[in-house]
Amino acid sequence: MGGNAPVIVQSMLNTSTKDVKASLAQIEALKAAGCEIVRVAIPSTSALTGFAAICEASPLPVVADIHFDHKLAIEAVRLGAAKLRINPGNIGDSAKVDEVIDTALQAKIPIRIGVNAGSLDKEFAEREDLGHTEKLVASAKQFVQHFESRGFTDIVLSAKAHDVRTTVDAYRMLADELPHIPLHIGITEAGTAFQGTVKSAAGLGALLLDGIGDTLRVSLTADPVEEVRVAWELLQAVGLRRRSPELISCPTCGRCQVDLINIATQVENRLQEYRTPIAVAVMGCVVNGPGEAKDADVGVACGKAKGAIFSKGQILKTVDEDQIITELFKEIDKLGK
Amino acid sequence: MGGNAPVIVQSMLNTSTKDVKASLAQIEALKAAGCEIVRVAIPSTSALTGFAAICEASPLPVVADIHFDHKLAIEAVRLGAAKLRINPGNIGDSAKVDEVIDTALQAKIPIRIGVNAGSLDKEFAEREDLGHTEKLVASAKQFVQHFESRGFTDIVLSAKAHDVRTTVDAYRMLADELPHIPLHIGITEAGTAFQGTVKSAAGLGALLLDGIGDTLRVSLTADPVEEVRVAWELLQAVGLRRRSPELISCPTCGRCQVDLINIATQVENRLQEYRTPIAVAVMGCVVNGPGEAKDADVGVACGKAKGAIFSKGQILKTVDEDQIITELFKEIDKLGK
Repeated sequence: MGGNAPVIVQSMLNTSTKDVKASLAQIEALKAAGCEIVRVAIPSTSALTGFAAICEASPLPVVADIHFDHKLAIEAVRLGAAKLRINPGNIGDSAKVDEVIDTALQAKIPIRIGVNAGSLDKEFAEREDLGHTEKLVASAKQFVQHFESRGFTDIVLSAKAHDVRTTVDAYRMLADELPHIPLHIGITEAGTAFQGTVKSAAGLGALLLDGIGDTLRVSLTADPVEEVRVAWELLQAVGLRRRSPELISCPTCGRCQVDLINIATQVENRLQEYRTPIAVAVMGCVVNGPGEAKDADVGVACGKAKGAIFSKGQILKTVDEDQIITELFKEIDKLGK
Repeated sequence: MGGNAPVIVQSMLNTSTKDVKASLAQIEALKAAGCEIVRVAIPSTSALTGFAAICEASPLPVVADIHFDHKLAIEAVRLGAAKLRINPGNIGDSAKVDEVIDTALQAKIPIRIGVNAGSLDKEFAEREDLGHTEKLVASAKQFVQHFESRGFTDIVLSAKAHDVRTTVDAYRMLADELPHIPLHIGITEAGTAFQGTVKSAAGLGALLLDGIGDTLRVSLTADPVEEVRVAWELLQAVGLRRRSPELISCPTCGRCQVDLINIATQVENRLQEYRTPIAVAVMGCVVNGPGEAKDADVGVACGKAKGAIFSKGQILKTVDEDQIITELFKEIDKLGK
């Protein structure tokens, strides 16, 4: 993690750790969607029940997310957590935080320091000389310095807000001021699938385009599998990683003479099964395709109830509308699956 | 448009201009969703039929989108287009482009110069000394200079690509090099509703956060009303404009003991009808709310089958899960609709 390593996709279970079977099933579903790290909340001692079994059987590293109670953090390490996520500001006095740090140091596992705009350490929340973003950054920096002063350097840092601009500004400052610390990026409490996708893509997209972010979580009030789907779509959008082929498809307009939305949606769905790093174009008319999609490996430019199948800008054949998808996938399949 | 004016939301009809009734109905639907400018494609002489009637009856300014044929552009101006969108590179020789410019100048309507990565002017497409982005920018700049040299200054400029990074880089360069020209921003051929939303939010979000963009279109292979919905969500996400209240809602996690996805989705849907510029929080647990949402005007922090309704961080009352939405909206309604 960090440096030139790929940006890692993370999500969080919404099952109870007490239900090991359901938790492991959700981890499998998340993994199948492309999740690479899972986080679980440990809100109480009873939530530790099952945690060891989950860590042991999980095919993905399991991060324990702990608030308020340092003893839960220490116990989670003992039970096999691959990483801790704490907000040192709500763990209590410094001695308790230090106990957690030392336990993780001994166990050789990383800690994510998760600062959050909504629950800032009092010392910073009340400072009138600092703006909202500066408070977040100052608090994060102080925690990092404290961890490092104890010899703990296996740190990941996050400083989330539900406001996109605050979050982007804070991470840009952190990347600038703490270039050696890997950053976990996210917009917190971003909302439901629709609003949360837009907020996360806007804020995290801006950061990723700047080269900021080592792990990311798209926070949605939705099935965690959706979070992973959006995260991958975003990494693909900014050109950092690719999981399935790229789809280039026109918006519809008055020039279009086929059922483009239907064709593009079908192509998109089928492409989810492919792992080839190719670009596939579905263009609605001759103004846009094949010309505008000449860098696509395979594509179709639709005309009146017809489609011209093309490859790298060269038309291979023209087929009837009802044959477009079949013929397009014949060409896609030639490039592997 | 331009300067400190609000960023304007644009979309494009996918009806035929020959069907005036359907076109006007789509304009009404787009307007209801918050669209402020509509564009229509004029691919042929026959598409001019109905165009005058649409311009006349439309409650929104109608932009004529024309490729290849300068005569269509000239005729569209005569029939009442509020603006032209052309890619001068495909209109033909300079005399034809100049005829279009002079017609728009006389009619006192603006022209959007729409350069596109996929259909670059040959002069630039073939230059080996320039990168992809530089070609787009150089071509756009040359067109602007030509228009200005003819005394035409009512220009809007776009330079879209389907690649997010190319688009962002190009617009950043244009904003830097042509600070006096309003920019229409968009990611072209961004794909279906899901992929296109993520790509558009990532690229346009980065630009809007930089203060770049005077009008925007989210291009989706989907119902144009969806484009407008995403555009507004994006403007809200980056804090530039607000149409409906802001929803702050937790991702789900193991701490949550209510059906948060259901509650948040219901709240989101009902909030669509509100035009009050408030923030509403739906928090899944006591770790996050009301503390993390203390800047929300109204909110609920859920516990075990209960919800604490709060305002500005102060708990007003605690209600049963099935009363959460009713009680929350009682408070929301007090702030107006």
